[in-house]
Amino acid sequence: MATQEKTPVENAQLKDIISHAKEYGFVFPSSEIYDGLQAVYDYGQMGVELKNNLKNLWWKSMTQLHQNVVGIDAAIFMHPLTWKASGHIDSFNDPMIDNKDSKKRYRADVLIEEKAAQYEADGHYDKASELLVEMGRLLGAEELDAVRELIIREGIKCPISGTSNWTEVRQFNLMFSTQVGSVAEDASTIYLRPETAQGIFVNFLNVQKTGRMRVPFGIAQIGKAFRNEIVARQFIFRMREFEQMEMQFFVRPGTEMEWYNTWKESRKKWHEAIGIPAESLRYHDHEKLAHYANAAVDIEFKFPFGFKEVEGIHSRTDFDLTQHQELSRKKLQYFDNDLNEDGKPYGNYIPYVVETSVGADRLFLMTLCSAYTEEEITEGDQTKTRTFLKFHPALAPVKVAILPLTKKDGLPEKATEIFNSLKYDFKAIYEERDSIGKRYTRQDLIGTPFCVAVDHQTLEDNTVTVRDRDSREQVRMPISELHGYINKAVSFKSIFEKLG
Amino acid sequence: MATQEKTPVENAQLKDIISHAKEYGFVFPSSEIYDGLQAVYDYGQMGVELKNNLKNLWWKSMTQLHQNVVGIDAAIFMHPLTWKASGHIDSFNDPMIDNKDSKKRYRADVLIEEKAAQYEADGHYDKASELLVEMGRLLGAEELDAVRELIIREGIKCPISGTSNWTEVRQFNLMFSTQVGSVAEDASTIYLRPETAQGIFVNFLNVQKTGRMRVPFGIAQIGKAFRNEIVARQFIFRMREFEQMEMQFFVRPGTEMEWYNTWKESRKKWHEAIGIPAESLRYHDHEKLAHYANAAVDIEFKFPFGFKEVEGIHSRTDFDLTQHQELSRKKLQYFDNDLNEDGKPYGNYIPYVVETSVGADRLFLMTLCSAYTEEEITEGDQTKTRTFLKFHPALAPVKVAILPLTKKDGLPEKATEIFNSLKYDFKAIYEERDSIGKRYTRQDLIGTPFCVAVDHQTLEDNTVTVRDRDSREQVRMPISELHGYINKAVSFKSIFEKLG
Repeated sequence: MATQEKTPVENAQLKDIISHAKEYGFVFPSSEIYDGLQAVYDYGQMGVELKNNLKNLWWKSMTQLHQNVVGIDAAIFMHPLTWKASGHIDSFNDPMIDNKDSKKRYRADVLIEEKAAQYEADGHYDKASELLVEMGRLLGAEELDAVRELIIREGIKCPISGTSNWTEVRQFNLMFSTQVGSVAEDASTIYLRPETAQGIFVNFLNVQKTGRMRVPFGIAQIGKAFRNEIVARQFIFRMREFEQMEMQFFVRPGTEMEWYNTWKESRKKWHEAIGIPAESLRYHDHEKLAHYANAAVDIEFKFPFGFKEVEGIHSRTDFDLTQHQELSRKKLQYFDNDLNEDGKPYGNYIPYVVETSVGADRLFLMTLCSAYTEEEITEGDQTKTRTFLKFHPALAPVKVAILPLTKKDGLPEKATEIFNSLKYDFKAIYEERDSIGKRYTRQDLIGTPFCVAVDHQTLEDNTVTVRDRDSREQVRMPISELHGYINKAVSFKSIFEKLG
Repeated sequence: MATQEKTPVENAQLKDIISHAKEYGFVFPSSEIYDGLQAVYDYGQMGVELKNNLKNLWWKSMTQLHQNVVGIDAAIFMHPLTWKASGHIDSFNDPMIDNKDSKKRYRADVLIEEKAAQYEADGHYDKASELLVEMGRLLGAEELDAVRELIIREGIKCPISGTSNWTEVRQFNLMFSTQVGSVAEDASTIYLRPETAQGIFVNFLNVQKTGRMRVPFGIAQIGKAFRNEIVARQFIFRMREFEQMEMQFFVRPGTEMEWYNTWKESRKKWHEAIGIPAESLRYHDHEKLAHYANAAVDIEFKFPFGFKEVEGIHSRTDFDLTQHQELSRKKLQYFDNDLNEDGKPYGNYIPYVVETSVGADRLFLMTLCSAYTEEEITEGDQTKTRTFLKFHPALAPVKVAILPLTKKDGLPEKATEIFNSLKYDFKAIYEERDSIGKRYTRQDLIGTPFCVAVDHQTLEDNTVTVRDRDSREQVRMPISELHGYINKAVSFKSIFEKLG
């Protein structure tokens, strides 16, 4: 897989998308005036609208369309015992190794994977595969000394110093920590959450009881999480600060595989409903399951750097709730009134959990990559390339641009009137600078589905032309029909109807 | 003011609101199963909907209603030089003092304020006032030794140990810090942002250029900020993790007071438009201005613990952009094409900034306090107290509850059909458990504006009754009119129209 990431053509496309994202206000490097902060990005004026649309759509898909799914918004700060229970304090680690000459630090597993990729590139597929299996075995058994020996035996060198003068391999915890509190003696170490799921688990009983929820039911959440990634890369695909959209679905033990399959299907359908072509999506079943899971699958999208995970669906069993129950000594059980085959209530149990977990930033990047379109068009006898962002209209940052043909004759006033009649319901732009052609191009580049031109005929008969972003075709319609026309295309309803 | 916070009757009301917020899924203490994390709270299934509605409404008010305001979403992590430029590294401090016997730490200024409050309670108003003036002078001059002497001279004792065995007074920085990066030698200290404003300032030129913005224009942002508050209190009013909604408005130097007054008025109008009674709001001009400001005002709400700040409007001058320009050595200037009185372009300048900054959590608390209503009602010959949350319908967590009168005769199926026809557009609840009266009460307690009852007549003529939360009156209407009826009441439009 490592070689796939480096295919020059594909990375060229990623490079184009990164430039486009910066130039048109989608994504800026964080703190750019201070030369940036590695693996952290800011969303610009167009990016924030796209991201908000994606978040709103997901939120409503979960909490409005399903009677039995509700939301919460837990804080980033949590009691440190949370991370003891979840296993993050003890085992959320990457194996690190330092080169003593260059003083540079590397992930030991990445060094070995790169070596394997080199074997593959040279046609030594067996060698590559053996090496990866050996590494998997050693890391699984936590035999870190042997991992170091493997690196030396394979002749892996530091790309900076060119030497094999390696330190021992150590585990490096990926959680960010900070000190909270006022009293010096009481000040305690807390962590920035590395995942949002635990905020749902610790609130499970509060939500179940106060919301009178009955199994099966789900709790959805959108929020930031943080990981001190050693090798952060591929633009916003892997960041140190990122946003998750997770839903934990609590079910009766024994029914989890049924629900796992339901959510697995339903989530892929969702990605298709927002306009991602089916052929750009695939499932990837996990061969090796995390300690808490009894089934897991990724939904992958074909990014310019290869098929990569956008969302994971995991059957997490009762692992998390059981861990929290043990550590907190609070019963995290549900009383199930429904009758079993013997006609008796199922009674008390710790529910099993099926999780759907999608990265908001990855969803954003998928949507942007999928929308980024270059097409050859002919104007007169010239052929040129038109670049535009083919977002689903419900996701586009700006829904409509109102463009007076000229700056005089009362056209700006008429156009402003139209802008004001639409602004309560739609994110609209009014723009009078530059030629109408340039203005159309600019709206294409930010993915605005509709451009409304206000011309002299408008003053006579209250009609406008509406240009379609994708077909570039224009239709003339009465101003009174504009609202309904736009609303039909940009409302979430058309997406929801596909989900049933 | 300290005494005001302790008025027993008012705190009793806050206590009721805190219980209500927990019991009906609005706000839970963070990590409650681990006995909580001080000054951190989680939003429950009703709270998250209310908070999202407030955030969406603010966002659209800023970025949809104003042609010249756009949004961004900058990361919480920023380059550390940001906080050098803003002054937070050097002076975002509280003066702390420890008692050597109890090992407890206190804010020195709070200890002195409490002493002053005691003088006031005893009728010694002059003494109280003298003490506060003296403290202000010493803290302003950073004479920390003299602050300690003042504490000892006033005989202030530790409430735990009862002694005056105090350490020296030290400045304690309120920013949370953490270590980022992989290479041990390169690992650097970064901070969790203590305010969101700086994310806007460092992105000022990126947004201005890529969005082709012309002064005056604004950049809006919603996001988390973090402060290691020593005395965090009053429920979600002052938390260590909180959410800000800020808009920085960039203007031509010399025009800032005009814009300051415009935003000051406009923001108060906004709070009134969302249903906060005018008499519960007031302005509070800052007597003492921060070093970066040339005018500042708070919009205060009458909380159960007294009038307190919900939003601040600050004229920040060119302080922030100038600081960033000096430290980053990047020109943060705007070229103004408009012509001045001499017919020449205004040319290059660093814009002045007017900021509107509202706490999302405080806005939430204000909305909750303002909505919390107890009224005496008579049912038959009984008088009882009805508690309900009188939210503006556009802000209510749930818009409509669909309630079949009984669980049989096809009423659940009919009600489900109605639920499905409304769920794409509104957050709705379907509920068939308990008597209809109990179900109405439950919806009152979470503030649902409309309850739709499905009865036997519904099966005959496709009409339902709609109960109004505030008046408890019921009207009968065709199912086909439901959507329009609800939409009119819950859409943001009615609020936007009041803002113009």
